[in-house]
Amino acid sequence: MGKNYCYLNGKILPVQDAMVSVYDIGLLRGYGIYEGITTYKNKPFRLADHLARFRASAKILDLTVPFSDEEIRGAIESLVSKNGFERTNLRVILTGGNTIAGIEFDADKPTFYILAEEYKSLPSEMYASGASLITHEHQRALPEYKTINYITAVQVQKERKAKGAIEVLYVSNGKVLEAATSNIFIVNDGVVITPKNNVLAGITRKVVIEVAEKKYSVVEREVTTDELFSADEVFLTASYKEIVPIVAIDGKKIAQGKVGDVTQVLMNDFKEYAEKGDW
Amino acid sequence: MGKNYCYLNGKILPVQDAMVSVYDIGLLRGYGIYEGITTYKNKPFRLADHLARFRASAKILDLTVPFSDEEIRGAIESLVSKNGFERTNLRVILTGGNTIAGIEFDADKPTFYILAEEYKSLPSEMYASGASLITHEHQRALPEYKTINYITAVQVQKERKAKGAIEVLYVSNGKVLEAATSNIFIVNDGVVITPKNNVLAGITRKVVIEVAEKKYSVVEREVTTDELFSADEVFLTASYKEIVPIVAIDGKKIAQGKVGDVTQVLMNDFKEYAEKGDW
Repeated sequence: MGKNYCYLNGKILPVQDAMVSVYDIGLLRGYGIYEGITTYKNKPFRLADHLARFRASAKILDLTVPFSDEEIRGAIESLVSKNGFERTNLRVILTGGNTIAGIEFDADKPTFYILAEEYKSLPSEMYASGASLITHEHQRALPEYKTINYITAVQVQKERKAKGAIEVLYVSNGKVLEAATSNIFIVNDGVVITPKNNVLAGITRKVVIEVAEKKYSVVEREVTTDELFSADEVFLTASYKEIVPIVAIDGKKIAQGKVGDVTQVLMNDFKEYAEKGDW
Repeated sequence: MGKNYCYLNGKILPVQDAMVSVYDIGLLRGYGIYEGITTYKNKPFRLADHLARFRASAKILDLTVPFSDEEIRGAIESLVSKNGFERTNLRVILTGGNTIAGIEFDADKPTFYILAEEYKSLPSEMYASGASLITHEHQRALPEYKTINYITAVQVQKERKAKGAIEVLYVSNGKVLEAATSNIFIVNDGVVITPKNNVLAGITRKVVIEVAEKKYSVVEREVTTDELFSADEVFLTASYKEIVPIVAIDGKKIAQGKVGDVTQVLMNDFKEYAEKGDW
């Protein structure tokens, strides 16, 4: 983040000069929302989908998005150009602005900013040979919305790293939900399946469903942990990770420890769709 | 907050100059803890209890408290003196500092700050005639720790104000828990009762238990919503509010709509204890 530029409340500025008040309700009360967006050919991927979800998250928290979609697109394009990275990841953040009366905020004075970082691919062997997960019993509050409440997600990073896992998969009462910053899919008998309820409707998840439906049956439904551990194939989806094959969970081998055929097809088809650029 | 001074990472400065990075993990991931402390005779009330809880909250989030208890006490005393309010409320905040790698932080570079505001009493008629609550189905994550995750608490403020309630009481599956920023007590047949599990162990709650035990039986146990609505007396406790009698919940009269005798005794005894100053 050293020399990056970011966008804060209408201005592009060096990230080290981008500061918010200690009274921001995002800080004092964790009250805010965000989006994580990646780019292909310097264009924000499926931005309309991200902004629709951003506005839905804002609405549920009574936050005011202070710019139009076109203004946000313009800010993103300027920021991508100003930073000049080979490929850019973006985060769009909105909080209630300064706290008033201890626990309230002024809806007319939100804090809105966009961070840009250079995209770094995961190690290529993770895509070639698969990665591992650990599970954690947790059900997020407001799971359908992308709030900044990632306390559990941050808390579990130490364990994740100690165990060499790429992600932490939330499970609740025997049901598979989502990973800390990704969605999860399983494949059984050629059918592509992903949890439907109490998860964030990821944009990459959405695109993968669209891409998969061209070749396979796709079902959104409840998925049990038993199904997960016995699945033919398992993979994660996330804006910054695309599709990552999973070959071990909690130290147990999944899908004979190999990247599955359907996963491989979807990885290729997704990449082709994303890089084509006409979305 | 206009002309107040605050304390940020070792320095006292005007609050309008106290800024944190847009990369702070408190902002990006809601990852932080806090304490709300009041003063009597310019001394922070039961500071040792607050700091013990602060350190317990820090531990559960793997956060480093960058100052000793004595340094924090010194910073608070300097801040109280510098602001010179008639009476001061304080908030102590700790986050993981700048976010690294999307969702991690450097444990050696936390953000630590203390905010000071002038204490404003609730309207005196609330203490004299009682106040009202609304209930909300909610169980906080990590309820025993004081994290900055107040999304639900902030979200419900609009409804609270519209209904003229002083606080929002969280209930879960027929059990009474705590209010958004207060603990709750009921009195039945002269016994003082407060929920035991899945609530924050408030410092004012603790002091009220100590004070009450001198005259009454006090029981910490599960409390049902049925018991709440039929209680002889109900009151809230909080650092910034002390003891507030409750005479209506969700529009229903409680305790014949009158401030109870035990509540009145405890309000007086608490005030006497707090104002005596030798805690």
